Amino acid sequence: MSTYASRICRTEILSIGNELLTGKTLNTNERWLARRVTELGGSVARATTVRDNLADIKGAVEEILRRRPTILLTSGGLGPTFDDMTLQAMAESTGRALSLHKSALRMVRAKYHALRGRGRIPLTRSRMKMAMLPEGAQALPNPVGTAPGVLLTVTGSKIVCLPGVPTELKRIFQDSVASIILQETGGARRVSRSLRVQRVFESELAPLIERVMNRNPGVYIKSHPKGGEQRGHSEIELDFIAQSSSKIESRERIQHAIEDMVRTLPKTGKIV
Amino acid sequence: MSTYASRICRTEILSIGNELLTGKTLNTNERWLARRVTELGGSVARATTVRDNLADIKGAVEEILRRRPTILLTSGGLGPTFDDMTLQAMAESTGRALSLHKSALRMVRAKYHALRGRGRIPLTRSRMKMAMLPEGAQALPNPVGTAPGVLLTVTGSKIVCLPGVPTELKRIFQDSVASIILQETGGARRVSRSLRVQRVFESELAPLIERVMNRNPGVYIKSHPKGGEQRGHSEIELDFIAQSSSKIESRERIQHAIEDMVRTLPKTGKIV
Repeated sequence: MSTYASRICRTEILSIGNELLTGKTLNTNERWLARRVTELGGSVARATTVRDNLADIKGAVEEILRRRPTILLTSGGLGPTFDDMTLQAMAESTGRALSLHKSALRMVRAKYHALRGRGRIPLTRSRMKMAMLPEGAQALPNPVGTAPGVLLTVTGSKIVCLPGVPTELKRIFQDSVASIILQETGGARRVSRSLRVQRVFESELAPLIERVMNRNPGVYIKSHPKGGEQRGHSEIELDFIAQSSSKIESRERIQHAIEDMVRTLPKTGKIV
Repeated sequence: MSTYASRICRTEILSIGNELLTGKTLNTNERWLARRVTELGGSVARATTVRDNLADIKGAVEEILRRRPTILLTSGGLGPTFDDMTLQAMAESTGRALSLHKSALRMVRAKYHALRGRGRIPLTRSRMKMAMLPEGAQALPNPVGTAPGVLLTVTGSKIVCLPGVPTELKRIFQDSVASIILQETGGARRVSRSLRVQRVFESELAPLIERVMNRNPGVYIKSHPKGGEQRGHSEIELDFIAQSSSKIESRERIQHAIEDMVRTLPKTGKIV
């Protein structure tokens, strides 16, 4: 039914970190990435979160690659500590060796130089780890942190590994990843509008939504109950979504669908 | 390395809803469920989010059940609209028929009766849908909404389906699900404490953490850079986590590990 979930730039997101699965940390990275991918015309098909555990990360990566997404975005596990193992998992899952990457090493070294003056911070094994990339990978500059992002192309998919620190993830995405997605989508943009309806049950709306969608091909409608049905003042948000290469066309389709929905609503309904 | 991720009550979470994958909605349900499961002594092994699409939901459910989690918690897709298809997916994935469930029907009917007075709201097909459960399932009362929760036991796993509306999800969890998890964990509780360290690089800490963990079996330590390394005032949060059937024992272990870490820190380090 997800007519707007086009095959264009099918994206999956993999978040890595125990703190996300103990509930310590709210996964705002996932939401941010999903929003940006969607705005750029891509479609996020699935999101997965695993622990800092090599077998778990590898298992998830292999499953995801079998589904052949256009892009796999990962966040977390790029730092210097023993439980940062995203790149090792990525290397093992794709059958590549992990080796010291010249340009990544330059980036990491430059960071520590800039921090405390030339030569004062030795490149320990832990720090070098951030420059150990799977063979054939490309290092993506991280202007606001130490660990570079990583781009790896395998059969059918592009894998992008981003750090879990939100400022670093966002910056690398904007600088190096957005353009990759735009290239894939060819600039197809998604348009959405919402309508809030009161005094109608979601269960009353259900068959009407189906009818309006049938009459308006290319427009997807989803209802979100905003609670209150049990308190006698139900409010429902209706999202109208369309995607095509022309923003104007998408807007017109949504406008028609909204007008159709307003005419179709029961008389008790109130638009707010 | 996740020594505390005991096999006791291995839980997976499956969130269902397009709005989570377009970035419209932040998945606060996932975090809330992860936190509660962890507090109750369980361990969340993986979290997955899929779209409102029958094939996608079924695919994810089948993969999850193959990993035999003690519990699978799902959120979303229990309402009356055409794109609420969690129960249909669950029925097809587990090879059960979907049929009208007497006790669920009583619950749904009672809700609409209470809302607008006896008999005034007909039980349409859309509304009946919320009482169509997979064979052998149990309906879990939803005192703050319409769609009941659903409990289904399959070989090796208990599946619990919760509505996506946060107030309803939380209420059903507290009333009917917490006790199931406690039964599985036997009341083993997890204890954690944090330490904030300034003026030390995460990369300097990495080998020290490994040493302290080796000297303190049963305690897991994770570092979270709080940013600022590039601005010269790095701050790192260290989480110390232990889990056992005795809270006192876990607390003592953590206390020892923290003292060990404080002794092991470089002299430049400052505890805040």
